[in-house]
Amino acid sequence: MIETPGDSLKYLFCPTSVALIGASGSREKWGHRILFNLITGGFKGRIYPVNPRESEVLGLPSFPRVTEIPENPDLAVITIPPSGMKQAIHDCILKNVKCTVVITSGFSEIGPVGKRLEDEFSRLAKDAGMALVGPNCVGVLNPHHNLFCHMMPVFPRKGSVALVGQSGSLLDMLASRISGRGMGVSRFVSVGNEAVLQVADYLEYLADDNDTSVILAYVEGFRDGRKFHEIARKATRKKPIILLKTGSTEVGARAGQSHTGALAGADSVVDAALRQAGIIRVENLDDMVDAGLVFINQPLPRSNRVGIISAGGGWGVMAADACTHAGLEVVSLDDATLSRLNNILPDTWSHNNPVDTIAGVKGTVVELLETLLDSPKIDGVIVLGAIAGAASMWKTLGGATNKDDITSKYTQGAMDFLGTSFLDIVRLKDQYRKPILMSMFMPVYLGTIMDNARKLAFDTGVACYLSPAQAINAYAALSKYGSFFRHNR
Amino acid sequence: MIETPGDSLKYLFCPTSVALIGASGSREKWGHRILFNLITGGFKGRIYPVNPRESEVLGLPSFPRVTEIPENPDLAVITIPPSGMKQAIHDCILKNVKCTVVITSGFSEIGPVGKRLEDEFSRLAKDAGMALVGPNCVGVLNPHHNLFCHMMPVFPRKGSVALVGQSGSLLDMLASRISGRGMGVSRFVSVGNEAVLQVADYLEYLADDNDTSVILAYVEGFRDGRKFHEIARKATRKKPIILLKTGSTEVGARAGQSHTGALAGADSVVDAALRQAGIIRVENLDDMVDAGLVFINQPLPRSNRVGIISAGGGWGVMAADACTHAGLEVVSLDDATLSRLNNILPDTWSHNNPVDTIAGVKGTVVELLETLLDSPKIDGVIVLGAIAGAASMWKTLGGATNKDDITSKYTQGAMDFLGTSFLDIVRLKDQYRKPILMSMFMPVYLGTIMDNARKLAFDTGVACYLSPAQAINAYAALSKYGSFFRHNR
Repeated sequence: MIETPGDSLKYLFCPTSVALIGASGSREKWGHRILFNLITGGFKGRIYPVNPRESEVLGLPSFPRVTEIPENPDLAVITIPPSGMKQAIHDCILKNVKCTVVITSGFSEIGPVGKRLEDEFSRLAKDAGMALVGPNCVGVLNPHHNLFCHMMPVFPRKGSVALVGQSGSLLDMLASRISGRGMGVSRFVSVGNEAVLQVADYLEYLADDNDTSVILAYVEGFRDGRKFHEIARKATRKKPIILLKTGSTEVGARAGQSHTGALAGADSVVDAALRQAGIIRVENLDDMVDAGLVFINQPLPRSNRVGIISAGGGWGVMAADACTHAGLEVVSLDDATLSRLNNILPDTWSHNNPVDTIAGVKGTVVELLETLLDSPKIDGVIVLGAIAGAASMWKTLGGATNKDDITSKYTQGAMDFLGTSFLDIVRLKDQYRKPILMSMFMPVYLGTIMDNARKLAFDTGVACYLSPAQAINAYAALSKYGSFFRHNR
Repeated sequence: MIETPGDSLKYLFCPTSVALIGASGSREKWGHRILFNLITGGFKGRIYPVNPRESEVLGLPSFPRVTEIPENPDLAVITIPPSGMKQAIHDCILKNVKCTVVITSGFSEIGPVGKRLEDEFSRLAKDAGMALVGPNCVGVLNPHHNLFCHMMPVFPRKGSVALVGQSGSLLDMLASRISGRGMGVSRFVSVGNEAVLQVADYLEYLADDNDTSVILAYVEGFRDGRKFHEIARKATRKKPIILLKTGSTEVGARAGQSHTGALAGADSVVDAALRQAGIIRVENLDDMVDAGLVFINQPLPRSNRVGIISAGGGWGVMAADACTHAGLEVVSLDDATLSRLNNILPDTWSHNNPVDTIAGVKGTVVELLETLLDSPKIDGVIVLGAIAGAASMWKTLGGATNKDDITSKYTQGAMDFLGTSFLDIVRLKDQYRKPILMSMFMPVYLGTIMDNARKLAFDTGVACYLSPAQAINAYAALSKYGSFFRHNR
């Protein structure tokens, strides 16, 4: 048994040397593709292809057996067929390899025959105290170490989101999606069949990993529920874990069994256990990405009481509904705040939370935001709709003579305005230590521009979403974790 | 009362002449901005600025009163302050204007004083049988007629999605979002306070409008629930109506009242009534956009029984869960289909629906898709994950020497492959008359590329989503409407 995964996983994510057992000159082979990605990804350590039938692979000298490599590699990645696995693992143990990643599939996930093979080689690893990832996994990434050891050419930028889970392609999707939002990856590990190392072991390591500020985990079933719970409840005291746990229906659970062989438990029991452990459970990938972002750049709220600013009544109504469903309290405003707002807003304003700016703002939206943040009853604010005022927008349109011209002038004006507004928002967030979440929209939508605006937001330190529902789901996750954190410090 | 909105609304959406009462040379005024948008949008009919203090506005001769215009305008758009509204409406009636759009706010939404003013001028319009949109609205669009009569410079392309609702900025957001997905707009109307024309009147018109194939409606509260229900249940027999009804919580309802003054009913009662009327109710803007797309380019399924193809086990598990929650049946496969799949897939395949392609496909994914579509037990297919096979992708990577080079070569290869695959998918959709929904992902994500891929999909006639949850929500909407349609033809 691996008692302290921290030590072994250091070699998994930050090896100084990597052996690739099954390295190949043929582009059809995973042993080629993974080596290609490892080299092209810019790994700074030493790389040793292992293949008895080649003298050189992708320009590197190849070794017939791992035992013949001139040093003891920290990490060995294995892509050879199942039949040779026991020997390969045996060699790795002989060579004192610290950690192995078994990419090869065809083990417990295909039935009893595969299970027997898996038990054999994994027992060897366990007895020798050698860490083992997989089998049946897509690989590991550590962009902070230029380690891109993966079946696919996936090179996310470095950042502070750790990805760990039971589906490689799903983790790839997550890496893609968070990149699209401006975030980066700290660690990525596809756990495969978990013959030795389990999801819980990675969580234990990641909880203490300084590059990681939030963990996104995908689980279909727990290998050892008790162990998971014990480790998770300690890890969540250190940093947030956002979990997508599928297999909640019978049909889903059946599909999961033929995938990695993991067994799904009764969902309501699982749900309660996860909540107790302080894990933020989300319902789908979209919510997971949205929640990931908020934990990176927002402080935890001190309560579930929110203020809402909406640039149009419809947004406020939608937001009030969604907040209530999500367990957030849309507080009524205190007298001091009301009277300060009376000075900023026209007489016909809603006199209510959500604060609707449709009739105009005498001052600026930033003043409005500051007034709400200053209220002792409000521990965070959600800003909905276009933050760019109509007046500033129309100034940029002077001289436009056709639709395309308007669109391009408006876009430039809006991006400039957003750049300035984001700086104000970040200043207020830091000053009040209260989260500020935005759902932005531009009447002239172009996918690229919206993507750029959202990346600019993230880079500046603003949490920005495409719809009120997304912003509120993310706020709810932040608030839940905040509550857990307050009660379990 | 307007008994036949169809006749009046023809003048609203397809006027040959438009008067703008409140036209102004000052960029600060809405009467300037709307006129600017109307002209710049390329309206082909005659435009008459009305303002007693100007002789010319934006290069067009201005008239002191609507009554002095040399013809009877089909449409009059009004932006003057509330105090002059009664006179303006009176003039429009004198001049036999067919329809008016009152942009001005400060009426029933601000309380009893405003309500009295609103009652006065709207009674005039009703008595005279003149259609009236608003007050307190952002305007109307008909891209098929080059009519962009709106407070904001919003110029969506022409298409078949109609947008109608009680929040202008929310409709703007919808127009932006559907544009970002490659769709276009048939009609857009912000209903405002509904002093004369109500949401139901527009639905009645849109149900018979040939440019419209799906209606997206946003409602906070119904002015006349019985009338809405009566009209809606007839309209849904002609085309799908996707409704976002907010104000489902007390807090939300309170926010809505100060917005347009509409009263929200008990949500469960509303929900049942909407279902009975065949309306597809969605929970948020995101689902609304996703569902809008599917009704445009997919046939209705003949039952709720779906087949799932997943390029990786995790997708299948997530999809099976989500389908079950959404009321879709993930059927077990019949023997004939199983045996055909045995010939296409490796021995270790899941032998189950979802069909997992993680272990590889001997033939192509298109053959797999056709096999499922050919099964009498399956009335539609959801394809999840990357459709581009790893083999074809790796072929495009030959010669790449760094991460950026890989990303760009991979992207090009993937787009080429998708272009071909989309054509195959559309061919199968047309051949079997069964819906095919995709959730696509590329391991190398770039926002722009994903947007382009999804637009390419839409243009080709493929329904493509960013996540399984989105695809399945959309499929569920399609299936619900299909069931209603079968039972109510």
